[in-house]
Amino acid sequence: MRIVVLAGGIGGARFLRGLKQAAPDAEITVVGNTGDDIHLFGLKVCPDLDTVMYTLGGGINEEQGWGRTDESFTVKEELAAYGVGPEWFGLGDRDFATHIVRTQMLAAGYPLSAVTEALCARWQPGVRLLPMSDDRVETHVAIEVDGERRAVHFQEYWVKLRASVDAKAVVPVGAEAAKPAPGVLEAVAEADVILFPPSNPVVSVGTILAVPGIREAVATAGAPVVGLSPIVGDAPVRGMADKVLAAVGVESTAAAVALHYGTGLLDGWLVDTVDAGAVADVEAAGIPCRAVPLMMTDVDATAAMARAALALAEEVRG
Amino acid sequence: MRIVVLAGGIGGARFLRGLKQAAPDAEITVVGNTGDDIHLFGLKVCPDLDTVMYTLGGGINEEQGWGRTDESFTVKEELAAYGVGPEWFGLGDRDFATHIVRTQMLAAGYPLSAVTEALCARWQPGVRLLPMSDDRVETHVAIEVDGERRAVHFQEYWVKLRASVDAKAVVPVGAEAAKPAPGVLEAVAEADVILFPPSNPVVSVGTILAVPGIREAVATAGAPVVGLSPIVGDAPVRGMADKVLAAVGVESTAAAVALHYGTGLLDGWLVDTVDAGAVADVEAAGIPCRAVPLMMTDVDATAAMARAALALAEEVRG
Repeated sequence: MRIVVLAGGIGGARFLRGLKQAAPDAEITVVGNTGDDIHLFGLKVCPDLDTVMYTLGGGINEEQGWGRTDESFTVKEELAAYGVGPEWFGLGDRDFATHIVRTQMLAAGYPLSAVTEALCARWQPGVRLLPMSDDRVETHVAIEVDGERRAVHFQEYWVKLRASVDAKAVVPVGAEAAKPAPGVLEAVAEADVILFPPSNPVVSVGTILAVPGIREAVATAGAPVVGLSPIVGDAPVRGMADKVLAAVGVESTAAAVALHYGTGLLDGWLVDTVDAGAVADVEAAGIPCRAVPLMMTDVDATAAMARAALALAEEVRG
Repeated sequence: MRIVVLAGGIGGARFLRGLKQAAPDAEITVVGNTGDDIHLFGLKVCPDLDTVMYTLGGGINEEQGWGRTDESFTVKEELAAYGVGPEWFGLGDRDFATHIVRTQMLAAGYPLSAVTEALCARWQPGVRLLPMSDDRVETHVAIEVDGERRAVHFQEYWVKLRASVDAKAVVPVGAEAAKPAPGVLEAVAEADVILFPPSNPVVSVGTILAVPGIREAVATAGAPVVGLSPIVGDAPVRGMADKVLAAVGVESTAAAVALHYGTGLLDGWLVDTVDAGAVADVEAAGIPCRAVPLMMTDVDATAAMARAALALAEEVRG
């Protein structure tokens, strides 16, 4: 079975770990969000790709969900001693090596997809990890500061400001000119199942879908497309998805997110059991929906979610 | 008093520490060798400039003479886990930060001289540290491997091969097109004393002098030029200077090095007391020479060497 997953960072990575357990023989292709990539200290940092790679490769810091386990911060402290920041982005020494290798390969002319493959040769994530695009896309968030509107990099909004101010708009800068990375459209076209994990619908899955060609490929794919709600009980399971959902005019409810994706994309939707009341609304909109536990408390629970998603895909398969 | 010192790495840096003690009120300008700079992991590494900066700024690893004190090697180990080397060059985590800052500033368009000044703002070395040039000069060493002549980067010859094979030639690639960094020629012209510390006469001081304009400026400067022999008792005090001296046809003796610099450059020369027999030979060649202890066993001993050099400069001042 060939499964394609459009994944952001922590939520996507943890879901994938469950999916691998649920479908150990599946060929899984992950189309990773690169809209939150950032250049720091002259280095190219791809937080979402790395979170997937480290999580599936056994190198992730389990407690925080991002970055490396057994991490130290000597380089960052030394940079700060030179007065070089930002200090709000937590790059550890082990993590730095990844960005150094990536930056060196990019400078040598390799596209991000080839670099990602090279990095994965070490981590052996057990999935094929593709960036959504080899082209630069940078998610910017419009905020208002003292009545003045200004745009900040997504990481500044998310990590530095911790989404403490309202997002007025979310713009994937460069997306309109980006091309899907090699293999992305083919994987979507040849997939038996396409899954939207409980990643952020706006700045993760939404950014991937903003790359011209990907939304169309998913919408027209022969495979059923099933998503899992990142909203449980009217609140994001983790992160601050409500802030960026508001920016695109979407309520933070499991049903509203399903309708945001819409029947054009979704063939099935999973909500948490606490949101069982939303099932009827989603189905009324034409999207088959089931209520199952959606808290990724451990790999077994996550595998059960993945199995439920695959079961719904089979059920709705045309 | 304005003193200009043409310095390599460890020997130059340790001499400078003694000179600062010997002449606490002097304005010292250091023209640093950049011929052994190397690009590693996409980062610009300037071993000699950093050795001077760390030594005078209190950050040096005292035992090994290069690199940072209290150093760790997490980034390097992680790079090796990606299969990315070279492993023979010991870049520590603290050191990496310096190269990251430097590379970022160079990429932003700052010349190496401005970058060096910015790095020194942290280290406060107590001297003005100038690279010999903002242009790229790379010392290559010609060796013979299985009867075939090939050129290797100086660092590969020195650090990887540990000068275990004969150097057939030493070539400062790019030197002929390099310009002295801003301030170098002015500092030489305005100096009251110019010193050649016991740095390598070929790959350190020699490379600096290979930048068009610097040799001429030193030769025609109004200030006396006094050097200290890096050879004591027919052997290099440290390093493998004999190997590269042989490549340029110079014997590894205190007298031969003086004659290699020659009367065109030197107005005075210090040899170690064990080489007192060489004094007559050097003076016969027209270079005033004194024998004093030249082992930099500690800062006091080094300061005494610096005082001897300054005293000889006064003695020979025209």
